[in-house]
Amino acid sequence: MKFLPLANQGVQSLSPYQAGKPIEELERELGISNIIKLASNENPFGLPESAKQAIINQLDELTRYPDSNGFALKQSIAEKFTVQPEQITLANGSNDFIELVAHTFASEQDEIIYSQYAFIVYPLITKAINAVAREIPAKNWGHDLDGFLAAINEKTKLIYIANPNNPTGNFLTESEIDDFLRQVPERIIVVLDEAYTEFTAEKERVDSFGLLKKYPNLVISRTLSKAYGLAGLRIGYAVSNPEIADLVNRVRQPFNVNSLAQAAAIAVLKDDAFVQKVAENNRTEMQRYETFCQQHGLDYIPSKGNFITIDFKQPAVSIYQALLHEGVIVRPIAGYGMPNHLRVSVGLPEENQRFFTAVEKVLQITPY
Amino acid sequence: MKFLPLANQGVQSLSPYQAGKPIEELERELGISNIIKLASNENPFGLPESAKQAIINQLDELTRYPDSNGFALKQSIAEKFTVQPEQITLANGSNDFIELVAHTFASEQDEIIYSQYAFIVYPLITKAINAVAREIPAKNWGHDLDGFLAAINEKTKLIYIANPNNPTGNFLTESEIDDFLRQVPERIIVVLDEAYTEFTAEKERVDSFGLLKKYPNLVISRTLSKAYGLAGLRIGYAVSNPEIADLVNRVRQPFNVNSLAQAAAIAVLKDDAFVQKVAENNRTEMQRYETFCQQHGLDYIPSKGNFITIDFKQPAVSIYQALLHEGVIVRPIAGYGMPNHLRVSVGLPEENQRFFTAVEKVLQITPY
Repeated sequence: MKFLPLANQGVQSLSPYQAGKPIEELERELGISNIIKLASNENPFGLPESAKQAIINQLDELTRYPDSNGFALKQSIAEKFTVQPEQITLANGSNDFIELVAHTFASEQDEIIYSQYAFIVYPLITKAINAVAREIPAKNWGHDLDGFLAAINEKTKLIYIANPNNPTGNFLTESEIDDFLRQVPERIIVVLDEAYTEFTAEKERVDSFGLLKKYPNLVISRTLSKAYGLAGLRIGYAVSNPEIADLVNRVRQPFNVNSLAQAAAIAVLKDDAFVQKVAENNRTEMQRYETFCQQHGLDYIPSKGNFITIDFKQPAVSIYQALLHEGVIVRPIAGYGMPNHLRVSVGLPEENQRFFTAVEKVLQITPY
Repeated sequence: MKFLPLANQGVQSLSPYQAGKPIEELERELGISNIIKLASNENPFGLPESAKQAIINQLDELTRYPDSNGFALKQSIAEKFTVQPEQITLANGSNDFIELVAHTFASEQDEIIYSQYAFIVYPLITKAINAVAREIPAKNWGHDLDGFLAAINEKTKLIYIANPNNPTGNFLTESEIDDFLRQVPERIIVVLDEAYTEFTAEKERVDSFGLLKKYPNLVISRTLSKAYGLAGLRIGYAVSNPEIADLVNRVRQPFNVNSLAQAAAIAVLKDDAFVQKVAENNRTEMQRYETFCQQHGLDYIPSKGNFITIDFKQPAVSIYQALLHEGVIVRPIAGYGMPNHLRVSVGLPEENQRFFTAVEKVLQITPY
């Protein structure tokens, strides 16, 4: 390949992110229909009516550029969480923010700390900017924060923590995070990626906005792709102290968040009933997954997210392939160094039943 | 500011992109209504029906992530321009591509060449990644390609050419670009940014896809924000040889293009009637702008885009402000080093008339 040696060093060995297989792609490949997708931790309920209406109301405005400052959406986030608009960075999904904060604060040879088995965009952006990855071995599939502290040195610029973690579902309590932050030098930016926080029961949830008041180097990253159901529109946001937000906003593409994402986000952030319904379904159905695994002697990692990761004790790719032929798309996570596991998103009751039945067929185990 | 010294070197002195003032912002600031915006080279016709329908058809799918590979949209671009899907990179507006190609091929201390008065995202991304800017003085407000050639050295990684150029409207012919490309070493990536190409008369337009067959280091960048009217949705694309596309796609965020942008783009790329109507209005109304300027003795830069840049021979910010009070938003371009000019987007006939009348009032000149 002639142009490969011209690319930046990190890019030369970069493998792109592997998305969950789209339903249309499987239809094209196998010529089957009636497919269900439990592969991308998406919201199974479809777009809430509130968001649909907000989109339709904006259609005539779409030849105009989006509001590059996201005035109305920032107001709406600021009111909901009692923060200032100057603390907010809007992003094209939280993936965008995870990259922006690295482009702002880290460059070649700086060190970035994250956990083994944590969200794969952390190693990808680290490699893309040719920074030094300090991947801390996981403890019981989750973050070993003592290991994080031991890895900090004068070159450390950035720390990513996913809570709950994807793809394992592990969870750190507020006191664990608080203890950790107290020991991190203030010159290091700590990104707390809470993409799945809405699925954690309210009484267990970390009061990250409270922590923000104590730790000026903390950045909270959130998404509306999961509980809020706007994955296809692309909208995430971060809340930090205003200085950090100002710096990241310099690097942000001015029109990174499209107009419909902004309008729909304003609508769903008010739609508590929708998010409650989503979280409740997740709780009930997660129970069914756990029961299913226990009854069949399948190991799984207890999860606070909207997905569960199951250990098949054998290379799971063949099970993944067999499930595809049953019209059930789940997520192989060999790319995370977990070749025996599959990650399954919690769907609607009937979708989850499809998964259970397909697994029983594929593994030739008797339905319980 | 405590966190400023922690940011990457280029970011520390970076000023964010200044977008055209949104209508809602002016409404809030001045408490006036009936505002027209000729500030962002937007399509004045509103979203075509074809795109609206494509959006409405997708609403139920929006809890799903977009197709990260853009299968259907790439097919549609490939068919329209007789290229291969593997040559295409999809972007969150062409701004996204302009940044992606820099993140792929240029890093600290590499040199990037672009023209004085060219699109401001080129210097912004150069600074953000702390590369060395080689800004070539303009010739008659346009690209001096001989100056580009003279600036090439072994550190040059990337060249940006905007054709037609924004904000000046200058145009390079196919033979000028061909002559230039013949003399550029193949190890340097040349991005030909054709955001405004659809406004150039067909017989004058550069056959850039023809040039692509001759020069493997050429990359064509296009947008659907201008003639196609999808600015609010964010969609652009680049066509290059497959090796370059593969490398840039490694750096691209997997879900950078939202689902509605993909669906609407497929619809409008087929909607030749809409784009023709847009281009025809632009031709007729550009004539009116030229006549207006000539009649009032105002200097302007002849433009092949959907905007015209007028020299007021005095600091134009006060004229800009006065026009705001008339409810007319245009674009000051002091940030481009053109403090005496204003850039005016060509709108609908009645919008352009509002601008003419407002200028006559503000400059206290007698209507012709």
